[in-house]
Amino acid sequence: MNVHLAKKALADALNHVERIIPSRSSNPGTNLLRIDLTQDAVRLSGTNLELDIETTIPADVQATGTIAVPAHVFAQVVRALPGDDVTMNVQDTELEVTSGEFATRLQLVDPANAPTLAFPDSFDGTLPASALAETLSRVRYAAAVAEYQAIFRGVKVELGADRTRAIATDGFRLAYADLDAASGLTGDVIIPARTVDEIAKVLTDGDVELTADDAQLSLRTSTTRINAKLMDGTFPDYQRVIPDAFPVTITLAADALRDAVARVSVMADKTANNRVDLFVKDGTLQITAEGAYGRSQEALTVEQEGSESEIALAYNAKYLTDALTSLDGKLRLSFSGATSPSVLGDPDDASYLAMVVPLRTG
Amino acid sequence: MNVHLAKKALADALNHVERIIPSRSSNPGTNLLRIDLTQDAVRLSGTNLELDIETTIPADVQATGTIAVPAHVFAQVVRALPGDDVTMNVQDTELEVTSGEFATRLQLVDPANAPTLAFPDSFDGTLPASALAETLSRVRYAAAVAEYQAIFRGVKVELGADRTRAIATDGFRLAYADLDAASGLTGDVIIPARTVDEIAKVLTDGDVELTADDAQLSLRTSTTRINAKLMDGTFPDYQRVIPDAFPVTITLAADALRDAVARVSVMADKTANNRVDLFVKDGTLQITAEGAYGRSQEALTVEQEGSESEIALAYNAKYLTDALTSLDGKLRLSFSGATSPSVLGDPDDASYLAMVVPLRTG
Repeated sequence: MNVHLAKKALADALNHVERIIPSRSSNPGTNLLRIDLTQDAVRLSGTNLELDIETTIPADVQATGTIAVPAHVFAQVVRALPGDDVTMNVQDTELEVTSGEFATRLQLVDPANAPTLAFPDSFDGTLPASALAETLSRVRYAAAVAEYQAIFRGVKVELGADRTRAIATDGFRLAYADLDAASGLTGDVIIPARTVDEIAKVLTDGDVELTADDAQLSLRTSTTRINAKLMDGTFPDYQRVIPDAFPVTITLAADALRDAVARVSVMADKTANNRVDLFVKDGTLQITAEGAYGRSQEALTVEQEGSESEIALAYNAKYLTDALTSLDGKLRLSFSGATSPSVLGDPDDASYLAMVVPLRTG
Repeated sequence: MNVHLAKKALADALNHVERIIPSRSSNPGTNLLRIDLTQDAVRLSGTNLELDIETTIPADVQATGTIAVPAHVFAQVVRALPGDDVTMNVQDTELEVTSGEFATRLQLVDPANAPTLAFPDSFDGTLPASALAETLSRVRYAAAVAEYQAIFRGVKVELGADRTRAIATDGFRLAYADLDAASGLTGDVIIPARTVDEIAKVLTDGDVELTADDAQLSLRTSTTRINAKLMDGTFPDYQRVIPDAFPVTITLAADALRDAVARVSVMADKTANNRVDLFVKDGTLQITAEGAYGRSQEALTVEQEGSESEIALAYNAKYLTDALTSLDGKLRLSFSGATSPSVLGDPDDASYLAMVVPLRTG
């Protein structure tokens, strides 16, 4: 066989697949890239056993077949190629990759050693790919890191008849983001947060088709197919914990709050939950932090509303900063109480909500 | 006291000093930044015990004195300041730093805890600062890393009556770079390579004055004073090992060789000295590498001269790549033999030379 490809098309496709393939693994074969050649396309695929990705490059292929190579070595070779074009040629047990005056002969591995990937043929729903990626990315920060119980390390996606919603929470903070309904597909799935990161990188443009069963969510764009293993378990009833009465509400620029928290929290005590204190009164938000090295404070002018005239509470500075990352422009920060959750959002856009639980300041 | 400064001037000065100050250290006090206030300047200083740096910011100071603060906390505060201006004010045991609506009160540390730094008042020689920085930077890569004997981890600077030369070698490769003489100062010094990195960052423009004794090299620019501890010991007689007879010499573009070596060496065996093979004959340089995953090769057309018609030899790809980093434009690669050192340089510029010892391929 003999395949001519644009180097950029091959390198871009390879990027999507290579990044999920483990460089070292106790499962033999998972470090392999599978290359399927059809009459009119080259297909690259790989897996990390939680996520399968296959991407297709249109090409004039002179013979068909399947080969496998170590993914990361092949990717290094491709990225370093000198010319704009690359020729791949299978000769016995080697893949010859040539470009200009440069040639590599890469040892083939029996493709039977690579995990077999099966992608569905029919899909039930459709969403705009980049909008889905953004929705997932906006909430992903609120998922738990490794030390929490497993279900908190997932992102729940509610595929409703009226809307699609992504939710993440670790019990101390929560975020959700909404998107149009995926016409034709309803149901709830929980996707591991790490898988969400990879899916978001691949979904860049066009539409994405979706289908799901109990075990996996599958996605298909014009070039790429994805299977994502789903998580088992019961996601927390997040609606129940979001407060709806707010004695004090303030409105200000999201970036002003983000910058002030960043400055003040330099002094926060990293060994005491990175605590920053907020005090709202008379249209002023006072932010303070105190630790072993000293004390910082900053005052911001805010629009203040609500039935109470003041509130004092404290947060983990990191949680407040994380919640602000997905917010730009106008920010409404609504306090349900000194020890009950606060809600952050854009007053002109109900499609995103972040919630942070204050620190107990005893 | 009360000092007003431009934030940028303070942050830039702080960058030079903070980066050398250890964040953790077994020597109490070395994590401190010393701040000296004179009538017309703020001086920041710190040390890592191998290198002292003091930098001066012109300022209208309303009282004089000396304070000390934890360097990295102070630097974090300064970098995050909201406005263009900053006011520093000492009140009892605290340094108040204010900018716009933001204020920090940082606990002072007794400056007696900070190492006392003494800089000389008179200097013997002068060099252009950025040219000295570039000369040091061009050879620094050839110094040894930690596992070698100490003297190979230094950069020798020969302050001659006719020229200044910086030399580094680890026994397997060598580089030197020349500069004008430092009028008024002669002698040889050996500077630790890590210190060279820091000095090169600080020397950006204007002239630098130099003076040296047995123990330290001192430098002074219009804003900055530096003491660098020197290394004891005998630097290898590098002139003796540079060959002067070359049976084969090739000339080509430095970046063409650099790129080809980068591509081919993807296949090189990392456990076998990262070996790449070169074969020169009939005006062609053939580069090959072979390892567990396969074999790569590339051919480059070169201008070939010399008494012999061909040569075959091998290098550690990293050593060859490092030597090429400081070379641009036309490159002359001169082979003294298959197992004796090769010399790299610009045929139109004798002020820089790199040498690489081939691998024994026996």
